[in-house]
Formats: sequence, C-alpha cells, structure tokens
Amino acid sequence: MEKVVVGLMGFGNIGSGFAAILEENKEQIESSLGRSIYIKRILVKDPENFRDMNKGEEYFTNNADLILSDPEIDIVVELIGGVHPAYEYITRALESGKHVVTANKAVIAKYGRELFALADKNRVSIRFEGSVGGGIPIIATLIRSLAGNQFEEIVGIINGTTNYILTRMEEADMSFEEALAEAQAKGFAEADPTSDIEGEDAAYKISILTHVAFGVYVKPEDVPRTGITHITEEEIKFASQLGYKIKLLATVRRNNNSGSLDIHVHPTLVPFEHPLASINHEFNALFIKGNAVGDLMLYGKGAGSLPTGSAVVGDVMEIVRIMKNNIFEEKLYTSRYHTEPASISLGRSAYYLRLQVKDKPGVLGNIASAFGRNGISLQSVVQRGRGSLSVPLIFITHEAERDKLDQALNEIRKIEEVEEISSILMVQKNPE
Amino acid sequence: MEKVVVGLMGFGNIGSGFAAILEENKEQIESSLGRSIYIKRILVKDPENFRDMNKGEEYFTNNADLILSDPEIDIVVELIGGVHPAYEYITRALESGKHVVTANKAVIAKYGRELFALADKNRVSIRFEGSVGGGIPIIATLIRSLAGNQFEEIVGIINGTTNYILTRMEEADMSFEEALAEAQAKGFAEADPTSDIEGEDAAYKISILTHVAFGVYVKPEDVPRTGITHITEEEIKFASQLGYKIKLLATVRRNNNSGSLDIHVHPTLVPFEHPLASINHEFNALFIKGNAVGDLMLYGKGAGSLPTGSAVVGDVMEIVRIMKNNIFEEKLYTSRYHTEPASISLGRSAYYLRLQVKDKPGVLGNIASAFGRNGISLQSVVQRGRGSLSVPLIFITHEAERDKLDQALNEIRKIEEVEEISSILMVQKNPE
Repeated sequence: MEKVVVGLMGFGNIGSGFAAILEENKEQIESSLGRSIYIKRILVKDPENFRDMNKGEEYFTNNADLILSDPEIDIVVELIGGVHPAYEYITRALESGKHVVTANKAVIAKYGRELFALADKNRVSIRFEGSVGGGIPIIATLIRSLAGNQFEEIVGIINGTTNYILTRMEEADMSFEEALAEAQAKGFAEADPTSDIEGEDAAYKISILTHVAFGVYVKPEDVPRTGITHITEEEIKFASQLGYKIKLLATVRRNNNSGSLDIHVHPTLVPFEHPLASINHEFNALFIKGNAVGDLMLYGKGAGSLPTGSAVVGDVMEIVRIMKNNIFEEKLYTSRYHTEPASISLGRSAYYLRLQVKDKPGVLGNIASAFGRNGISLQSVVQRGRGSLSVPLIFITHEAERDKLDQALNEIRKIEEVEEISSILMVQKNPE
Repeated sequence: MEKVVVGLMGFGNIGSGFAAILEENKEQIESSLGRSIYIKRILVKDPENFRDMNKGEEYFTNNADLILSDPEIDIVVELIGGVHPAYEYITRALESGKHVVTANKAVIAKYGRELFALADKNRVSIRFEGSVGGGIPIIATLIRSLAGNQFEEIVGIINGTTNYILTRMEEADMSFEEALAEAQAKGFAEADPTSDIEGEDAAYKISILTHVAFGVYVKPEDVPRTGITHITEEEIKFASQLGYKIKLLATVRRNNNSGSLDIHVHPTLVPFEHPLASINHEFNALFIKGNAVGDLMLYGKGAGSLPTGSAVVGDVMEIVRIMKNNIFEEKLYTSRYHTEPASISLGRSAYYLRLQVKDKPGVLGNIASAFGRNGISLQSVVQRGRGSLSVPLIFITHEAERDKLDQALNEIRKIEEVEEISSILMVQKNPE
C-alpha cells in the first residue's frame, strides 16, 4: 500500500492522541483511504525523554529542520500550540510545498488570511478543524455541508474551561475560585487560566468562525469580550430563579439593518428551553442559523487528546484524498471574502442588570425613568430581599443598543440610592 | 462563468426548496464554486400546472427522457420520493454517466449497495445527505470528518412526525390521536401516517446510517421496530414522574461481546439529563459515539423544504467541486464494507415495564420471583394508585437480553393477579 508520510510537530496532549488514533484505527483508516499514514518523525522539546520508546535514532527530534527540510514528508501536522515558533514552522512547511494540518487557534486567528493565501500560492492545503470545538466538525460543516447557505448567526459555547466552571458553580454551589481550582485539578483549566476565563480563547475561535462563515476577517483582539471572573454563585442563583443559565457565549450575527457584523464574547443568560442551556461541563456546542438550513446545533467534546486528535486525523485523511487525486482545492476558505471588511459592533441585545440599591420609596421610579429617557424598555423587574436597608434590584431589558444602555446606566449611577451596578449580562433569545 | 447543468426530478416540497435556495443564494454559491448551477428542466406530473410560471417550452415536463437522455445534463437531482420510478430513474442516470443527488431514503435504504456499485462502475457520484435528518450533515460527518473513528453507537431521533406527536402529547396533555391530528394539520404528518408512526421511516434511515458508519447492510425490513401508536398520555406522565421523556429512538450499536450489531427502532425512556431528552417538536438529533471523538450530537430540522433543500444544494456543490477537478471518488460509502454481514440482534437494554395487576398481597413477590428466575434484575419498582382493586405496577429493569425478558413476561402473564402487561419500553443510559 502506498504510504503518505507525516512529520508531527508536538507530542503533548493532542499530538499523542493523534498518534494513538492512527495506530488504534489503522485498519479502518487504510481501508477508507487505500493509503497508509506513516509518522516519520516527531518534533519534541527533549528527545531524551522518549529514549525508552525505542523508536530509533531521530524519530523524536528537537530539530525542526529534520521535518521541514525532508522532501519525503508530505504533510506537516503542527500541534505544538502557541503563536511562535508554530507560525514560522507552518509558513516554512507551506513554502516547501507541504500540506499542513494544525489545531492552533491562535495562529489561525492571527495569521489565517496570510496562511490561506500562502497555501494557495504554493498549491497545497492547510486545514484546522481541531482549532475550534475539538472533535466537533464545525469547519467542515460551515464550508462543505452548509455551503449553500447564507449564515445569519453562529452562537457557541466554545470554551470548555469556562463552561466547566459555570456548570460546577451551579450544580455544586461552588464559588468561582473553588470551581476554577477543581477545573485545574481535573485538567480542564491550565495553571494560568487567564486566556480562558477572560474570554481570549473564545475570541480566537469566534474570529476563525467569522472568517470561515462570513468571509470577514476580524482580528481576535478586536472582538469585544467580557470574561466570567466576576460571575458569582449568587448571580447564578438569581438567573436560575428567573429561568436562565449563565453561559459564556461567543456570538457572530449578521446585522440586517446596518450591514455590520455583531460579534462578541459575553456571559449571557440562556433560557432553560434553549438547546445551549443544556450544554454542561467541558462540552462545547455551536448553534448555527443559516437561511436555508434554519437552526442547527453541533455538540461534543471541545478539547482533549482523542476528540481533538479525531479532528486532526479527519483533516489528514481529507488531504490524503486530495493528494491521491492529485488535485488542488483553491480558495477553500477565502471564496466568501468580502472586498470591504464589515464594520463590527456589539449589536442589540436584551440585558440582565443587577443593581444594589437602598430600599427607599421612589428609587425604582427614578431608575425606571432613567431607562425610559434613554429609550431602554424593561421586560421585567425583580426585587429580592425586601426589608433590608440595601437590596438587589434586577432588571431584564428588551433589546437595546449597548451605548444607549451605557448612557442610561451613567445616569442611574448618579442616583443617590444606587450603591452599585453589580452585573451587566446579555440575555439570549429563544430560537424561533 | 462555466455552467453546471442540473435536471431536477420532482418539484414538491423539497424540489421547490432546492430551486429556491439556488436562486436566493446564487451569488454566494457562485463565488464559492467559481461555477454557476443551472436547472435546465424539471420533471413534474402535470406541466400544465406550471404554465403561468412562464419558464418556456418543456422547462416543466412529464417526460423523464428529456432529462435522462439529455447529454448536456451533468447532475440529476431526484426528489420525487417513493421507490418506483425513482429507483429506475436513478439507475438510468448513473448508467448514462450522470451524477445523482437524492434525498430518497427508501431507495437508498433498499438499493443503496447496488447503486453505489453502479456509480463506481460508471465513475460518477451519488450523494444522499438529505435522506437522513433533513439539513443535518450526518452523512458527511460520518464519512468525512469522523473518518478516523471506529463507531460504537449511533442513537437518533430521526423521525420528526413521531417526535412532534410525543412532544405535543407531553406538553399539551394530548392523546395520541389529538396530537396526530394536529401534526397532520400543521403538515408534520402525512394523510396516511403509517410509515412514520409505525417506525418504518426511522428503520429506513437507521439502515442507511448503519451502512455508512459500520459498512454493514441491513435491509430496512430486517430492522426490529416498534412504533408509538400504543403510547398513552398516562405512560408519558408515569415516565415523567420517574425522570424520563419518551422518545422514538433509532439505534445501532456495536456489540463488543458478540461482534454483532444491535439495531432497532423502539420507543424509549430517555433520562432528562440526556441531550436527546431536550430534542422537541419536529426537530431531529443524532447522537454518535466514536472511539476517538467520544460523544457527539448533531441537532436540527429533520425535514422541510429549505432544510432538506440545504442538504441537497450542499451535495450538488460537492459534486461540482469534483467535476471541476475532473476526479472520481471511488468507494466513498463502501470502503468500510465487511466481507461478512454482521448478525443483527436487539441487544441488551434496560426496560420499563408497566403491568396492570390486582392489588392483593403477594403479587409483587410472585412477579419479582419470575424476573429473578430468568436472570432479570430490577432497578426500581413503583406502584401507583394504591387502594384500588386494580393498580399499575411499573418496573425498571437493569440491562437484560430481550429473550430473557420475554421468558420472564411469559411466566408473569400466567400469574392470576396480573391482568395485563401494558407497556414494554426501552430505557436509554445516560452518556458517560
């Protein structure tokens, strides 16, 4: 059987999962492709650590050139993570006419546009299914199966760490800090969890999805984002009493009025009946609205050695099919490019607001008037704990522009009895 | 721009949706493909009905030859439904070297094996994404994205009619007959609903999925199936009190002990926490377990003009990409074929049993002994309505073989106080 030769860069969580799947499902993969996939060399930091695996001289190497300059290697699988030197390795691989598979969200979010063009120029493929949603086939679904759709909206739970933390806070009555510590102990959060809990990881991923589905490149650092560090157990209980779960949602939505894209990562109240409300623990889910397919949701493990490895193997197999046929798929991700980049806004949303106020007559009236003056209409108001000196007051607004809301809140802050604006969360609509 | 020429057979619900999407998303589709898709002719029963659409002579025709014998037509899109003459048309199209896209579950379930071989022989493509799950990209996901997996299980809600009926029975306290009438009024059930409510439609679809995912052809008429006509409001309430929803599930599962496949369509109690429990109304969902990806679920509209049309457009676009590259994808669905067809069994399952018994001392003991003698162990027993002469008694068993269960039930039927075995439903495990 003809061999396809892979150079693997990185042998951590995902790299070792990728190699394990190739071995475990070898028969399956070969019968499907009519080709065998052979890992010739693996780039690691310290080859000494792998000496007892008895894989022969230079199977494990710390010299990237042995992969990037080896003419026998057809496909470079980049799984080292981080921007540098991953970006440089991918660039060199494409320039040497090698196909590339990566699960690197940071590189694709930051340099995707450039790398897709470089791949087209060198007539090779670059694939990155594993970069968003782990084993969930979101990129293939957007590019292939739903190619006949105009997308209206993608809303996702695309960060497993924060979803795990929020789920545990709710089901086990934990504080944010306790749930984070548990997530770290279980390997669902890194030692430095900043990128996950501040929404940066989700911003990378929604930038990639925006690129693929809407043909618009939004730099990940331009995605408006709010993390979950300020979410309290109390907030989760308030939300639950009102019929909502709190989820960190990443959203991109075509704004039909302005022609702009609404894009953001924001903690959001999701109604119990919404399919995203039942996505718990480390699971991810993507809710897609297309003008033909309607509502579609994909759900699965958003991270982990084997799930993400599954996506990487799928990508490698697609490239082998392309190689077999000696063809070249041009502009796979770029054919939808708009000539003008869309303007980006937070868009309209209903909001959940929690204020801490002195329980005096007339407070509610003053606050409500401030909302009214700024064109914010209210869906519901709930006062908890009547009778104390200081009480929480919860408002859910109808859909509003964020700048109008901020104007109203600036006026409200000046009302003497208002002690604090404790929370500003978005509220997700039910699907139609 | 180069044109790809389509002959469309059938202009009902899905056919008109397909044409509408091609028109509405024309710009999108052309920029993605670099080709335009052009419907040259549409087969309908009575062209007179379409005369005022002013589409010119023979655009609408009742003569299939004008499509099947037209050398200019590259792709035949078969959306007339039913086995005959759809099967003959598809055969003739493939034999004439035309690619075929169909959403015809009956033809693919009955004749798939033969048609895939015929397509390979004539070096053309046949695609059928729309035949299972409407707009949900299940076939592409199994064949492409998850190609590196060995599948362990597929469990689906793949009949929208029955899911609509069961949902309405629960949420609006309707009888089966009332919910069926409502489904018919809303277009979710046909005038003759037999195929849906008796599980035949789901059997077609699980046969196709078994073929694609496990490489095993099980004739749809060999799929053990039980429909939902005997499900009562009362049963739904009992199940709900125990923490379950009743869903019509289609299941195929690799039985690791026997090497056989467990396959069936059966009304099943699904625990509230299971993602399938929250799939309501006409929505479909497919829950997939792969040895690499773990648990994955796809959810969306399982039928309807635009959702199914979306799948058909996606298939046509994939074929255009293949045509552009002048390649041929051999054995796309058949590379996983096993040389020996697997043996089929109902497999092990936990069961929910409702018996109507006379409320006399010793009844429960006698019944429990009969279960024990046949190796059926019980998870829980609930007696409702104590104090009447005749009471329902509900058992949930641990996992058991169906034939052992039937033996126990045969003994139980002979116990004098047992008036009726009212229900035998399966119980779904929670995902791990």
